[in-house]
Amino acid sequence: MAASPSITRTLHCLSLFRFIAKPKPFPSSHAFPFPFTSRTTVQDSNRFRLFSMAAEPKESTANNPGLRATKDEATKGYFMQQTMFRIKDPKVSLDFYSGVLGMSLLKRLDFPEMKFSLYFLGYEDPESAPSNAVDRTVWTFSQKATIELTHNWGTESDPDFKGYHNGNSDPRGFGHIGITVDDTYKACERFERLGVEFAKKPDDGKMKGIAFIKDPDGYWIEIFDLKTIGNITTAPA
Amino acid sequence: MAASPSITRTLHCLSLFRFIAKPKPFPSSHAFPFPFTSRTTVQDSNRFRLFSMAAEPKESTANNPGLRATKDEATKGYFMQQTMFRIKDPKVSLDFYSGVLGMSLLKRLDFPEMKFSLYFLGYEDPESAPSNAVDRTVWTFSQKATIELTHNWGTESDPDFKGYHNGNSDPRGFGHIGITVDDTYKACERFERLGVEFAKKPDDGKMKGIAFIKDPDGYWIEIFDLKTIGNITTAPA
Repeated sequence: MAASPSITRTLHCLSLFRFIAKPKPFPSSHAFPFPFTSRTTVQDSNRFRLFSMAAEPKESTANNPGLRATKDEATKGYFMQQTMFRIKDPKVSLDFYSGVLGMSLLKRLDFPEMKFSLYFLGYEDPESAPSNAVDRTVWTFSQKATIELTHNWGTESDPDFKGYHNGNSDPRGFGHIGITVDDTYKACERFERLGVEFAKKPDDGKMKGIAFIKDPDGYWIEIFDLKTIGNITTAPA
Repeated sequence: MAASPSITRTLHCLSLFRFIAKPKPFPSSHAFPFPFTSRTTVQDSNRFRLFSMAAEPKESTANNPGLRATKDEATKGYFMQQTMFRIKDPKVSLDFYSGVLGMSLLKRLDFPEMKFSLYFLGYEDPESAPSNAVDRTVWTFSQKATIELTHNWGTESDPDFKGYHNGNSDPRGFGHIGITVDDTYKACERFERLGVEFAKKPDDGKMKGIAFIKDPDGYWIEIFDLKTIGNITTAPA
């Protein structure tokens, strides 16, 4: 009945995201043996769970201790504006984020005495930015979902600079940013032509249709599309 | 003439962001002595720079080696969807991100065999999410600027778990996420009342009006408002 497609989707969700929590070198499809011996077993073990999910969406406060049912009015208007990480060489990173990923440089701020620069990039159209430099700063901070690349001057030519840590080996913490694209396979074919390094190609492992590329500093960028996310989570096991 | 206010703003930008590249314990205003001995000196040393900036915005391709003048059509429709980092305890993190920062749980994905869960949070209204679980996944991945919290089961009660690395001490990499709020001071008063830990209060150091708080795992979250960004960058030296 209604349970079977849900279970199938659950199985696919499992294979879809499993590598995120185990981000050591990307496994072949053998490296993480599929944990279920038969679909029947899974159906049985999930029967109670599915019943309980039917009553309450998984995202309800009842199912998520700590989650608040109502938002404090004080947080009205808040939005997620930026994700900052450090880069070795802005020439290389600007080429990557604008050339490969199609972002624009929304704002640059230089701090000569402290010897660093900040590059705010995103998918907003910089043609709509004010021409006045200060107004452009305000405009930039009013955009959702920008990345802020911090360049400490000199790292790009320092032979002793060891590079930055991408958070996916010890000590772990930050994992990745993620870009929604029109078509993951088409995007990844282009990335390959452009010489982009992959942490996971879209057909590696069990999770087909989602990729992880690396930026020039080795930070991971998840690549997915809305068509693929839908296909993967609804296809039969 | 026109140069003076720009220089003043440049000086203030310097003090505004200087600590980002030097993120060791936040300095008092003495810790980083103000690098300029007089405004005249700065005006002189920046005269050529300002002239050049008048001709070309700082963000132009001419001023930024590597930056592409035109976007590849293949990247049309791309958007920045997520920032992932790992958390120790979802109960504590959900309380923080929903209760303190006003985010909603857009989607939860559980992976029992792999013993981890993903929590996607953001400022979208979950009331507008589809009720079907798979459609809700697609809906979530179609939202800009979400955070994806990865919980490896058991860390919340494991006495040997050492916690996650926030990227601001060696080995460095990731720095922070940033939330635009309505009023930084008002927001920070509330954060203080709620017992939130600060990496920098809004009046610490030279950079007034911008704060850094810590989430329950110690990740930094920059807090700023559009009024303050404007005031700081236009106030006299």
